[in-house]
Amino acid sequence: MMDRNIYLSNTDLEEAVGIYLEKMARSSPDIGVEEIDTCDAAGRVTARPIFASISSPNHNAAAMDGIMVISAATYMATEAAPVILRKGTDFAYINTGHMILEPYDAVIMIEDIVDLPDGSVRIQAPASPWQHIRPIGEDIIAGEMILPENHLVRPMDIGAVLSGGRPKIHVYEKIRVGIIPTGNEITDHYGSLDKGKIFDTNSWTFKAIVEQMGGMAVRTSPVPDDHGMLKTAILDMVRDCHVVVINAGSSAGSKDYTAGLIRDLGELVLHGVAIKPGKPTVLGFIAGKPVVGVPGYPGSAYLVFEEIVGPVIRQLQHIKAEKAPMAEAVVSRRIVSSLKYREYVRVTLGRVDGKLIATPLARGAGITMSLVRADGLIVIPMNSEGFEAGGIVPVELETDIETIDNTLVSIGSHDIIMDVLANLMAKNAGAAIGRPMRLSSAHVGSMGGIMALKRGEAHIAPIHLLDEETGEYNESYVKKYLGDDFTLIKGVRREQGIMTLKGNPKGIHSVADFVRSDVIFVNRQKGSGTRILTDHLLRMEGIENNGIKGYDREMTTHMAVAAAVESGTADAGVGVYSAAAAMDLDFISIGFEAYDFAVAKKNLGTGLLNSFLEALHSPEFRIALDDLGGYGVQDSN
Amino acid sequence: MMDRNIYLSNTDLEEAVGIYLEKMARSSPDIGVEEIDTCDAAGRVTARPIFASISSPNHNAAAMDGIMVISAATYMATEAAPVILRKGTDFAYINTGHMILEPYDAVIMIEDIVDLPDGSVRIQAPASPWQHIRPIGEDIIAGEMILPENHLVRPMDIGAVLSGGRPKIHVYEKIRVGIIPTGNEITDHYGSLDKGKIFDTNSWTFKAIVEQMGGMAVRTSPVPDDHGMLKTAILDMVRDCHVVVINAGSSAGSKDYTAGLIRDLGELVLHGVAIKPGKPTVLGFIAGKPVVGVPGYPGSAYLVFEEIVGPVIRQLQHIKAEKAPMAEAVVSRRIVSSLKYREYVRVTLGRVDGKLIATPLARGAGITMSLVRADGLIVIPMNSEGFEAGGIVPVELETDIETIDNTLVSIGSHDIIMDVLANLMAKNAGAAIGRPMRLSSAHVGSMGGIMALKRGEAHIAPIHLLDEETGEYNESYVKKYLGDDFTLIKGVRREQGIMTLKGNPKGIHSVADFVRSDVIFVNRQKGSGTRILTDHLLRMEGIENNGIKGYDREMTTHMAVAAAVESGTADAGVGVYSAAAAMDLDFISIGFEAYDFAVAKKNLGTGLLNSFLEALHSPEFRIALDDLGGYGVQDSN
Repeated sequence: MMDRNIYLSNTDLEEAVGIYLEKMARSSPDIGVEEIDTCDAAGRVTARPIFASISSPNHNAAAMDGIMVISAATYMATEAAPVILRKGTDFAYINTGHMILEPYDAVIMIEDIVDLPDGSVRIQAPASPWQHIRPIGEDIIAGEMILPENHLVRPMDIGAVLSGGRPKIHVYEKIRVGIIPTGNEITDHYGSLDKGKIFDTNSWTFKAIVEQMGGMAVRTSPVPDDHGMLKTAILDMVRDCHVVVINAGSSAGSKDYTAGLIRDLGELVLHGVAIKPGKPTVLGFIAGKPVVGVPGYPGSAYLVFEEIVGPVIRQLQHIKAEKAPMAEAVVSRRIVSSLKYREYVRVTLGRVDGKLIATPLARGAGITMSLVRADGLIVIPMNSEGFEAGGIVPVELETDIETIDNTLVSIGSHDIIMDVLANLMAKNAGAAIGRPMRLSSAHVGSMGGIMALKRGEAHIAPIHLLDEETGEYNESYVKKYLGDDFTLIKGVRREQGIMTLKGNPKGIHSVADFVRSDVIFVNRQKGSGTRILTDHLLRMEGIENNGIKGYDREMTTHMAVAAAVESGTADAGVGVYSAAAAMDLDFISIGFEAYDFAVAKKNLGTGLLNSFLEALHSPEFRIALDDLGGYGVQDSN
Repeated sequence: MMDRNIYLSNTDLEEAVGIYLEKMARSSPDIGVEEIDTCDAAGRVTARPIFASISSPNHNAAAMDGIMVISAATYMATEAAPVILRKGTDFAYINTGHMILEPYDAVIMIEDIVDLPDGSVRIQAPASPWQHIRPIGEDIIAGEMILPENHLVRPMDIGAVLSGGRPKIHVYEKIRVGIIPTGNEITDHYGSLDKGKIFDTNSWTFKAIVEQMGGMAVRTSPVPDDHGMLKTAILDMVRDCHVVVINAGSSAGSKDYTAGLIRDLGELVLHGVAIKPGKPTVLGFIAGKPVVGVPGYPGSAYLVFEEIVGPVIRQLQHIKAEKAPMAEAVVSRRIVSSLKYREYVRVTLGRVDGKLIATPLARGAGITMSLVRADGLIVIPMNSEGFEAGGIVPVELETDIETIDNTLVSIGSHDIIMDVLANLMAKNAGAAIGRPMRLSSAHVGSMGGIMALKRGEAHIAPIHLLDEETGEYNESYVKKYLGDDFTLIKGVRREQGIMTLKGNPKGIHSVADFVRSDVIFVNRQKGSGTRILTDHLLRMEGIENNGIKGYDREMTTHMAVAAAVESGTADAGVGVYSAAAAMDLDFISIGFEAYDFAVAKKNLGTGLLNSFLEALHSPEFRIALDDLGGYGVQDSN
């Protein structure tokens, strides 16, 4: 039996952060103060109040282009009896900002004077004393406080501080955050990846977050799962940094040294926070400095960094959190949550038929792409079982609402061409003015797409559904499931086939081979067009599903099937040519099918649909299809 | 007569920006593409779509800490009939993320096994094939698009791109923005300021904005008002940069060369935009590159940079504007606007009695401090006359609403100690956890403060109002104007007196001297406590106001009076000792007065008031009073 401690506490997040920050405030960490050029101070925090040392303006200055005059010499001027002023004695020209000279005490605007041939001017109204003159100190008076301390310096502050005669100011030093990736399987040699290794990616994400907060990240290369080496790395970082983050090793596995090391070297405050993902988090202090053990999965790591390390850095850096804007959205699927945790669910968002629709992304803590694809975050409180489909829930927005409103929501069958179309829409958005369009794509299979379209959760549903009676694709399904308010946009013809390892070592030639005892199959999920096609072909051959090994192992994309075959966990699967080509697999063609887009008729002609059609019918798209292989163009409608 | 062109166009802002950006899109400026380390890509914009080159995970990996097993060997296990697995043959230990080895095809969680003394384990339930295993490509499949092009890279994107095996990516080069400050009176020697000179401050504010947008600023030292030198500077910048900004010289004065130079060297698109501040703006192209003439006043410069140069940079940089959050606020004063312009009015904001109150800041285009102090921006459309006091208007928030809700709004008499108290509150806010408090201070004189308090626009009103009948301060005013629902917080005693130039060259000894023919006076505004004191003293001496030169020249703060005396535009004024000391003036004492804070009784005990009282009664505040001089402490209540 190995040395494992599987018991973690389940402390509420607010309580954990509260306890930790309060302890940190009491240990009063030593944040240095440095004097820097005001010019370079944007994003820094003032460590002292900044008082003006000179006034601005520092002279009585013309507020307008015009002439300076002696007001007493103008008070008789009227339209009926204009006054003539002689240049050099009665007036002098002056431009905005320039200094008023003795004995002048007023400015008349250039628009209000009439030039005379001899250089003198005529005025038709008197000038009151000090008119159109900015007095000394109108903006800033010497001795006035320009900025208080603990103030995050913004661009306009720089101008004001310089105006007040303060070319250097005192700011807090940047908080240094030490980041230690750990794990024998972790590598930062990004050129290639040996089997069994995992790239260190979290530390770079952390570094970017720290820098966005105005701090400095100090990162080491990954430290192996070795108690002594990790101890040395931690002590080095604690010496040089204000905060130390240890990534992975924070759980209770046999190689999870973080909690024990913090306990040995300093104070372990708590181990285990009631959030999902992110539970196995370690909070402690070494030499009075906060040391946080962050779990390894990217989803957990990101959340714990944002929710726990973020407040630590902000408190040391004297800055506040910016609250994300909130919106109310309809959840398109049921979201189930445990009563034991506060759970964070990332969602994509789109505006369909006027409603903001939130579609949950894959919740696995290992799914980096859920972070990338998310438009928003739903927080399910502890003691809540989650939300029912169709419920209205508050969502923290991670994408601005204008972009969300300009997102074409596609739910349905998966194909690589959806990536190509998404990129073409993003590219066109960049080129055109004021018309940013985005394509958000969820893969739930063709039938799932039809149902989402029917429920008003998507603008388009990519489908490839074979009507076994007629041998035709898609039309009859739209008619049967969606009715007359919907229609089809013709998409592409694509080649389906059987994927096997390069060289086809098991000699597979048709679906009839799937039932062989030496063949392991990998399937697609129910409701996907490819599953319907597969079942149709098996039925034609008279093959029973339950005789096929792996028939119950379901993947949700062509690429996932290809990856299963490529990795050797399956010998055969059904999918499109482009997926087989991408994974360098052999491909036994079954034939071409129609991959089209179901759409509500009322949405035809909208900017979003037009932008999609523009990409679909563009020459760049044709070129991309040729490059992928296995595609043909259909007649467009 | 000098060469001036006083006619500018009055083009609507949207139209101007629309025309300009469209022309820019057609001239397709040459933005380079560079390959950079993914690690350093935060804030950059992808120039090509990024496809994964390897899958993540790249091996079938344990999703849990536990043991790997052969699923077929476990299917008999039940609670009643557990199965014993031998280490090395039937199972092997594995940690999360590590590679599943042949012949194992499932993982059982560490929590679900019972360790036996001989190293074998007991299980009480079967493992289904592939359970607790993350298949190859679960997160990212080789060939999948991770990011489209034109995507602003965020921290989580960096992790995903590295996971997909892409250590380098192609991004657009940073947009280089050339910044040319101009003007004979402009200097960037910030050590000291000669009379008649003005610091170049806008260029540094611009630089900080450009960098916040992800661009690079290339700045020159100020160029004199010399046609040839300016031409050379512009051509140099056009050669090296994507965008050039010329600051000041954009109007129609005799030294305003910008419009003419752009016309001569390239294409002048338009001169004059219908916004206030900011009208004299020049838009053009030289060598196909956008060149913008931005007006010189900081208020105009900032607005034009944000509203016109910002969209230019963002379009070239392929990023979008972030929309400021909006709120509805009650305007505390009438805001009058011309029908001819879209006008921008900056406001402070505070929550008083549940209402969000917007108080307009000084609108002069030269007032940098209005930019610094602003919590929000009110945009008055062209063809609108503005807003009535008490009206509800939309405000663009520049300060987050949480900070606004934690702002103590003070309206009333001015004193330097309000700066000290504001800083102490900001400082305490930084030290304490979750209790950010802020003091916002508007100076409208004591009576103005009482009226603002009565209208529910302020939390406190600093006042120093002499009751001429009793000789007492403040109490009777609160009773008379505010009634029983209000009370006084005792503040400080402060010394009032007559300020004169150092050495008192005019030999002024009492207010009786103000009426002398060789003395010029400078006054405070009606309703200020100091004005009431001055008028009282003059009445006591039997002096007529209209015999005093400068009696009608009104300043709104003690410091402004001191500055007028210091600059020689007045010989005497009445104000507090600290202002005289700050400007190194002579001070003839009149006596001590009470500077207190009127407050609604219902607000006593709130967190905001407590935070204020904490600062007011702190030892740091006593020390600051001693340093300033001329203050005494009152009995606190």
